[in-house]
Amino acid sequence: MELLEKRILEDGKVLSGDVIKVDSFLNQSIDTKLTDELASEWARLFEGEGITKVLTIEASGIAIAAITALKLGVPMVYAKKRKSAPSSDNTYSTKVVSYTHGISYNVTVDKPLISASDKVLIVDDFLANGSALRALISIAEVAGAKVVGCGIAIEKAFLRGGDNIRKRGYRIESLAKIKSVSADGKIEFC
Amino acid sequence: MELLEKRILEDGKVLSGDVIKVDSFLNQSIDTKLTDELASEWARLFEGEGITKVLTIEASGIAIAAITALKLGVPMVYAKKRKSAPSSDNTYSTKVVSYTHGISYNVTVDKPLISASDKVLIVDDFLANGSALRALISIAEVAGAKVVGCGIAIEKAFLRGGDNIRKRGYRIESLAKIKSVSADGKIEFC
Repeated sequence: MELLEKRILEDGKVLSGDVIKVDSFLNQSIDTKLTDELASEWARLFEGEGITKVLTIEASGIAIAAITALKLGVPMVYAKKRKSAPSSDNTYSTKVVSYTHGISYNVTVDKPLISASDKVLIVDDFLANGSALRALISIAEVAGAKVVGCGIAIEKAFLRGGDNIRKRGYRIESLAKIKSVSADGKIEFC
Repeated sequence: MELLEKRILEDGKVLSGDVIKVDSFLNQSIDTKLTDELASEWARLFEGEGITKVLTIEASGIAIAAITALKLGVPMVYAKKRKSAPSSDNTYSTKVVSYTHGISYNVTVDKPLISASDKVLIVDDFLANGSALRALISIAEVAGAKVVGCGIAIEKAFLRGGDNIRKRGYRIESLAKIKSVSADGKIEFC
């Protein structure tokens, strides 16, 4: 999506270790007009799929997922990150290792919030090694829901996390796919 | 707002210590249609105020704030919660004690995300003792921004946190104001 790629080049900042900071328009600060365009694009791409719920993970996925769910006319659910596994059996939980921060945490969703009748679109801001996305897919499927697909704003395609999940048969629609980030911080798209 | 009060009575759950759980429609799971109605109401109430930014705090405020900011056609910024004060001078930071969880944490916003030209609407899901709201007001004002007002979904009016902030001259528009929660979990609105 040209609009998003242009914005990443204009306002994104490449930090060390190929971390791309998009805090000024997609993370801590959200350009709601841009996000509405991303939501429209996912709504177009997944039209006719009968999506009943949008699933994301706190905190940076929530705003994008909420605006996408509003566009689709369905509820949004976010998974929480917890240091320790929950003691309650009323919670779906799975472990994740963060690519950006190098720490592990548990991803949890309260059981009543997702059900076997749900057709789920997973939405997130970034796809790097894919561990967060695999965790969300796992939670949706353990709940018996169908994962219709994944809407990702920025995919670090060079890390192959997305391709590994695509090979398992999941549809991932990434609106900006980054092919490479050079040592001097130049971003090239696929 | 009758729509919200009705929904709290139908789907909210009162836990011990007057904690009201609204996870099924306003927190971990967001009813986006209801949230869109809340956003419309705040847009109506604050019409003509020239709002340039919506400010909230992670994680449960983000979805409501994002949909409100979309309705107002402005960006949304969320404050992050951190255990320790940030070492960077590029961050506004202030300390908060959570009423619900009884723990203290630091609320931080990166300096470039809020400026002296901003007219800020603060949006959050709950107002209890008011410490999170005071922290957000403080951050906006230290940045030199004007706080136009606060849009709160559910105010626990019996805790007086909101009234104490109103006495300081701030406008708070709470769409459901809870007068009391009885020992057997019955909610009465103002």
